Amino acid sequence: MQKPAIPKGTRDFSQLEMARRNYIFSTIREVFALYGFAQIETPAMELMSTLMGKYGEEGDKLLFRIQNSGEKAGEAPEKGLRYDLTVPFARYVVQHRDAIQFPFKRYQIQPVWRADRPQKGRYREFYQCDVDVVGTDSLLAEVELIQIVEEVYRRLGIRVCLHLNNRKVLAGIAEVIGAPEKMMDITVAIDKLDKIGVEQVNAELLERGLSAAAVEALQPILNLSGDNRDKLAQLRTILAGSEIGLKGINELEVIFDNLSNVDCRLSVELDLCLARGLNYYTGAIFEVKALDVQMGSITGGGRYDNLTGIFGMPDVSGVGISFGADRIYDVLTELDLYPAELQSATQLLFACFGEDELRFAMQCATALRAKGLRVEVYPEAVKMKRQMAYADAKHIPYVAIIGSNELAEKKLMLKNMLTGEQDLVSANEAAAVIQ
Amino acid sequence: MQKPAIPKGTRDFSQLEMARRNYIFSTIREVFALYGFAQIETPAMELMSTLMGKYGEEGDKLLFRIQNSGEKAGEAPEKGLRYDLTVPFARYVVQHRDAIQFPFKRYQIQPVWRADRPQKGRYREFYQCDVDVVGTDSLLAEVELIQIVEEVYRRLGIRVCLHLNNRKVLAGIAEVIGAPEKMMDITVAIDKLDKIGVEQVNAELLERGLSAAAVEALQPILNLSGDNRDKLAQLRTILAGSEIGLKGINELEVIFDNLSNVDCRLSVELDLCLARGLNYYTGAIFEVKALDVQMGSITGGGRYDNLTGIFGMPDVSGVGISFGADRIYDVLTELDLYPAELQSATQLLFACFGEDELRFAMQCATALRAKGLRVEVYPEAVKMKRQMAYADAKHIPYVAIIGSNELAEKKLMLKNMLTGEQDLVSANEAAAVIQ
Repeated sequence: MQKPAIPKGTRDFSQLEMARRNYIFSTIREVFALYGFAQIETPAMELMSTLMGKYGEEGDKLLFRIQNSGEKAGEAPEKGLRYDLTVPFARYVVQHRDAIQFPFKRYQIQPVWRADRPQKGRYREFYQCDVDVVGTDSLLAEVELIQIVEEVYRRLGIRVCLHLNNRKVLAGIAEVIGAPEKMMDITVAIDKLDKIGVEQVNAELLERGLSAAAVEALQPILNLSGDNRDKLAQLRTILAGSEIGLKGINELEVIFDNLSNVDCRLSVELDLCLARGLNYYTGAIFEVKALDVQMGSITGGGRYDNLTGIFGMPDVSGVGISFGADRIYDVLTELDLYPAELQSATQLLFACFGEDELRFAMQCATALRAKGLRVEVYPEAVKMKRQMAYADAKHIPYVAIIGSNELAEKKLMLKNMLTGEQDLVSANEAAAVIQ
Repeated sequence: MQKPAIPKGTRDFSQLEMARRNYIFSTIREVFALYGFAQIETPAMELMSTLMGKYGEEGDKLLFRIQNSGEKAGEAPEKGLRYDLTVPFARYVVQHRDAIQFPFKRYQIQPVWRADRPQKGRYREFYQCDVDVVGTDSLLAEVELIQIVEEVYRRLGIRVCLHLNNRKVLAGIAEVIGAPEKMMDITVAIDKLDKIGVEQVNAELLERGLSAAAVEALQPILNLSGDNRDKLAQLRTILAGSEIGLKGINELEVIFDNLSNVDCRLSVELDLCLARGLNYYTGAIFEVKALDVQMGSITGGGRYDNLTGIFGMPDVSGVGISFGADRIYDVLTELDLYPAELQSATQLLFACFGEDELRFAMQCATALRAKGLRVEVYPEAVKMKRQMAYADAKHIPYVAIIGSNELAEKKLMLKNMLTGEQDLVSANEAAAVIQ
């Protein structure tokens, strides 16, 4: 007989894990809804022609291909599993462009699959949770996404800092220090500033082919001081000669200004070292980190100017962020921030001594459910010890015991499983206690 | 440039379709929760060894196989996409038996994949929604599932009839008419009673190898009359000689009796022609049909005695039902039963004449969201006509127009998009109107 198992890098989610995941997802969804974002879903399978060439050479290798089934080879186009939500979203926007109202505010929460080598914290199947506005270049979209980050983490109780950068500022920096083609190298190197210090960053920059003069010119930027506004003011002077750099600074200022306009309390920090997604982001770049846990970014995103170009629809600007469900899960676990109610789906268990008692329990349970209570009836009149053990193991907070005395009085012995207190009450009284 | 498309037999779900699907699923989930059922999830991919041989020869051919990726051929076990939720559930129960509390009440809502030839109403990717109790043979589990059916369809507003049969009764019938090995043939033939009439059924039975005497003996069963209790009483006489038949009748009587005990108002009909899942059901068999629409079964299930035997854990009895989301969707569409609110995720759109107005709108929107309202701000001060067209197309019921007058007064012009009425109000007053 085979021993049951699942493929490497995949997971089963138990009832407690699902309660916690659903808590995260429903918190996020409720906040999305307040801002008028609505959900779409796309199929798990996409045509290989949709997926190939979109994730670089390495990414192509990590695509899971589906063998054609029920069709002769060559008869049907090749299919593969979704690798992320961005490419299917771009395909969706182009395919359904005539039915979509722009600006299009959508979110999508679905699993993706990658044939990565499985390791701690890296899975072959995991959920992504993406929210995007496409079809507008208004920076109010960025502002709303930052407000969403604020509200989601406020509700989850996680203290975070949002790091904000702008691709145009990075381009401007490379331009003014005379190394426009080295933007990536500069960003990758200064990304290490905190870890390895300014001297080693400078050494690395020289190694990456920057001239000594360029490295010299970069120093004031590595030494920006003060709060976000101070830094932006200093940068404005430094980037005075770069049109794109100044455009980036203007964008950042509009965002900061609008965040104060709506009284946003989130900690937002201008972070020139933030170098996420430089291949496709064209404006704002976001990354969110939890303050009280050592953990990578738990949310990230940015502005892109050409999401749908690959599918023949140019000039669609958008901005989006992605919430990392697995990491948020780990942060909440580490900080012990899950609401206690998630421990048990059931509020009350009926435990009965006999068949007649069970009939009465079924009546009471039906009445209590009509009041909205989540109620189980242990379905067999087995030994009370076993029924109580079931309630214990499932962390059910109340048990209603029904024996012949209770049955005769049409009442139930309500036991608070935490305190051990017991009271003989009617079903209605029990409902009042539990609610 | 490639024209964007998705694989045959798969679907994108738009925001309206998702709102409707989420309405169905959340209605079902809320009812499940009242009965103490909690959710689990299993991976989309299972090992081929888990899937193969579980769905018959035809089913095996309809499995989608995943090509191994990132591993050398032969290095990793073969994987395939989930074909249903039952086999993964059985695998889950055995794999996690030590962590599970029995009776185990779980539900699961996930997509499954079948390489069927796509056609109207048949997809290669579709959601299943299964709810099961395993680890008890108490018939109260059947009763609770029927109560769940009652409550789900009451909430959705769909009038239904639940057809109830019992595999043991079918075995008993075959036994008493002297053709115990012909149970399947008998059931398949009498399943057609309504369609082809008694004479043709009898002809088919003879064709299927029943003796004339057996067909003769079957006639009283084809002619049962009266309500469920009358029919059971007649059956009890007919099946007096069959132990298993009487056991089935007892089970049915316990279920009917307990349904009256909890005052179940669902129309439940004893239906000896119901022949669903005879390969695995061992007791109750359920099927639910909508009364006001021509449509196949929208929910079905039954009792099985050996879910987990294939994975080496014998004697685990369970009972479950499956809600057919796609068909429920179609029934609600045909009967036009979706709540009107599903048309729009957004309750209020701010439409502004200029940048200063937009700043004020962002403040108002933030304040209204804090009150729980779902609010959008059109992010650009484009022509009012375009902003109103956006609200119209998205069926947003209220628009708050802000021009220079409104801005000066710190008020907004609230327009009811249905009636066309407009009022100059404060943000607080707008909230009161909309809520």
